[in-house]
Amino acid sequence: MSSAPSSPSSAPVIAELEAIVGADKVRCDEDTLFSHGRDWTKAWEPAPLAVVFPRSAEEVQAIVKLAKRESLAIVPSGGRTGLSGGAVAAQGELVVSFDYMNKISDFDPIDRTVQCQAGVITEQLQHYAEEQGLYYPVDFASAGSSQIGGNISTNAGGIKVLRWGMTRDWVAGLKVVTGNGDLLELNRGLLKNNAGYDLRQLFIGAEGTLGLIVEATMQLTRPPKNLTAFVLGVENFDGIMNLFNRFQAEMDLTAFEFFSEQALQKVVAHSGLPRPFESACPYYALLEFEKLNDEVEEQAMALFESCVEEGWVLDGVMSQSLEQLNNLWRLREDISETISQWTPYKNDISTVISKVPGFLQDVEELVTAEYPSFEIIWFGHIGDGNLHLNILKPDDLDKAEFFAQCSKVSVAVFDIVKRYGGSVSAEHGVGLLKKDYLTYSRSAEEVALMRQVKQVFDPAGIMNPGKIFD
Amino acid sequence: MSSAPSSPSSAPVIAELEAIVGADKVRCDEDTLFSHGRDWTKAWEPAPLAVVFPRSAEEVQAIVKLAKRESLAIVPSGGRTGLSGGAVAAQGELVVSFDYMNKISDFDPIDRTVQCQAGVITEQLQHYAEEQGLYYPVDFASAGSSQIGGNISTNAGGIKVLRWGMTRDWVAGLKVVTGNGDLLELNRGLLKNNAGYDLRQLFIGAEGTLGLIVEATMQLTRPPKNLTAFVLGVENFDGIMNLFNRFQAEMDLTAFEFFSEQALQKVVAHSGLPRPFESACPYYALLEFEKLNDEVEEQAMALFESCVEEGWVLDGVMSQSLEQLNNLWRLREDISETISQWTPYKNDISTVISKVPGFLQDVEELVTAEYPSFEIIWFGHIGDGNLHLNILKPDDLDKAEFFAQCSKVSVAVFDIVKRYGGSVSAEHGVGLLKKDYLTYSRSAEEVALMRQVKQVFDPAGIMNPGKIFD
Repeated sequence: MSSAPSSPSSAPVIAELEAIVGADKVRCDEDTLFSHGRDWTKAWEPAPLAVVFPRSAEEVQAIVKLAKRESLAIVPSGGRTGLSGGAVAAQGELVVSFDYMNKISDFDPIDRTVQCQAGVITEQLQHYAEEQGLYYPVDFASAGSSQIGGNISTNAGGIKVLRWGMTRDWVAGLKVVTGNGDLLELNRGLLKNNAGYDLRQLFIGAEGTLGLIVEATMQLTRPPKNLTAFVLGVENFDGIMNLFNRFQAEMDLTAFEFFSEQALQKVVAHSGLPRPFESACPYYALLEFEKLNDEVEEQAMALFESCVEEGWVLDGVMSQSLEQLNNLWRLREDISETISQWTPYKNDISTVISKVPGFLQDVEELVTAEYPSFEIIWFGHIGDGNLHLNILKPDDLDKAEFFAQCSKVSVAVFDIVKRYGGSVSAEHGVGLLKKDYLTYSRSAEEVALMRQVKQVFDPAGIMNPGKIFD
Repeated sequence: MSSAPSSPSSAPVIAELEAIVGADKVRCDEDTLFSHGRDWTKAWEPAPLAVVFPRSAEEVQAIVKLAKRESLAIVPSGGRTGLSGGAVAAQGELVVSFDYMNKISDFDPIDRTVQCQAGVITEQLQHYAEEQGLYYPVDFASAGSSQIGGNISTNAGGIKVLRWGMTRDWVAGLKVVTGNGDLLELNRGLLKNNAGYDLRQLFIGAEGTLGLIVEATMQLTRPPKNLTAFVLGVENFDGIMNLFNRFQAEMDLTAFEFFSEQALQKVVAHSGLPRPFESACPYYALLEFEKLNDEVEEQAMALFESCVEEGWVLDGVMSQSLEQLNNLWRLREDISETISQWTPYKNDISTVISKVPGFLQDVEELVTAEYPSFEIIWFGHIGDGNLHLNILKPDDLDKAEFFAQCSKVSVAVFDIVKRYGGSVSAEHGVGLLKKDYLTYSRSAEEVALMRQVKQVFDPAGIMNPGKIFD
């Protein structure tokens, strides 16, 4: 762990930081450096210079100006639930944490918008929306600890993208401090604003490399009514796609997820939840929709039956209560946590939906042929073309050796991604983990332009350097 | 009109252009220079050097490289239906027209996406979608002649934004040629792609100042079912807002438009359409929704009745057929064409919805006090906070003098826009018309950053120079 903070050379900077935020909001103790110097990837050893906890946009601006003057790299720190190392501080950087900027304010029931400081927890916003009779639809497993600023910086996706889109779609305005120390108010909550380039869009998904998000105007919407889910057992992947097309053509689905029998078995064993039905099927699809009235229910049942008749669906169950709905969702949502005990190597890849079956088959053939001893757990968001490929570590394999072997698999997987015109990072971002593979999804010209765009907003190169690209 | 093309100095460039696209696809005749050197603003005298009609991305790329070498300014030319002068070529520029790049291809029923060359007409895409049993929801008065490339470059809005968003929301991929001559394929139709900055977003709404859009992957969706509209007569603007809130809280509206009695009178006189009902009211709201079943209809009627009881609604009518729906829509959609005979001075301004009543009142008081002889026609998209303020030219006032006086009004109107944190261009873009007022909606720092971003993509400054900013 870093001992930089106690070195004499950093003392004046620490003193200046303390002058900005107060002595109790600059931390150099080992626990804080460790906790705030890494994210969920755990692959890099945290070694920040210090962790600073501003409480206002003005304090953030003063910190950035100081960092710029001192050529001190900044790593923005939200809930640190990222899976690509975007929030890792392993090079003596200054971590700027938004833990104390967690106020929600200025709710307007007509605009259905609300101001969130960057450190507002996703679940906090979801609950706040509920209290207003509204809904914040972006949801994922880490909603209990991820922060809005981080969600925006990584354009977080999750389980409801099919109907409600990514975080990008819910950002009506952004207050940011650029790497140059400018405080910008981008779009200010307007639904329609074609007055010049929409710079807000650049900061969404930029992983903190252009500046720091300090506040966001988030859009809320009406809550869904009577959400209802099917879990359907399917013979093969073509069946899942047929099923998706049949339902999608007739109904407004709110989610369409899938997982494999292996995934289900592990979740059932881990959670004690009942299987959705007796029969074991190679794959399962979870479909969700709003059961607005009896007509919709009848329509859904008729579609289900037609899919059984076609031979696409082997068995199925529909939730009849909120409790059943939640239990069916847990079969899908608990996968990530359940398999974490096997030290999974995660891939978050996508292609256009129509190419998913061939894409999945090619990836599976590759991994099975090259690494027959690795167990593969598939799950993901079919409705978005986003697959999560999880390779489990065999018990008898050393962790370092396992990851080294998986890195080789990754290159081969990304070759397939490239051939399918897909993305090496569908929703987790690039961070440190994927930056060597960025060119599998983006051309050399695009990467060169990204670097130049970064130069515009962060001329001193202090904003989360080494993330996305070197 | 320009005689530049016949000048000896331009002859070699013309010859090179002819070598790229063929002699018949470079035009220097007066008619083409005139028609393709301006948009619907008609305020600037067209004077392009030549108009070139490429037929492929490669030809566009060759044209841009030639223009860069020759420091020749390029003006992209779509359907030229813009209202801010974005497609005006008044300075000897080379106009690049997409009239011959109008192919739709590669429709995929699973992805519900389709490739459109930049010159595809909006209505062509709408009809194509219908033929596939799908829907392209962006719609506006000029859909019969505007082109997709232009729609994307101006992030076109229109009458269905409340439910389906702006053009931005339907662009799944973009093929562009930057001002540097690079051909970029941005996002390639992926629903989820968090691999680096989303450069696609920058080109949307950039009005051709960063490069030329040559092709787009457009997202389609399921068609709406049984669209049904109310036209409701309202006493005052607070009533319209109350009405909006009441309906919006209970139903998924597909549109919420408004217009004034003056606007209605002019449309009725011009079109011969019947008034929606006998009584004359100061304002009218047009609400649209999907009448999915009897339950929805009953709900809509109950809401209507509660709004009458509250005193917000004075009278109303609901469409009972597609023909009635279309006739009610014409009361709103025909306004622009109808008032064109009065040489209107148009403003396209927005604020957040909750501030619309005060905003509208302040603007109306200003214009009425300063210019009592001017007739004002209000209409717009309440659901998006977007108002169109149209000032009609008195018959006895000279056109030049009228526009000079209106420009003074504009400054005062934009002061109000600024005070309300609104936009000086909600959906028409900045072009030439609004560039002097850009700072009423964007900070000096933002404008400086925009210039630098332009420099990245267009280092020679040849892409639509002088549009958005100087």
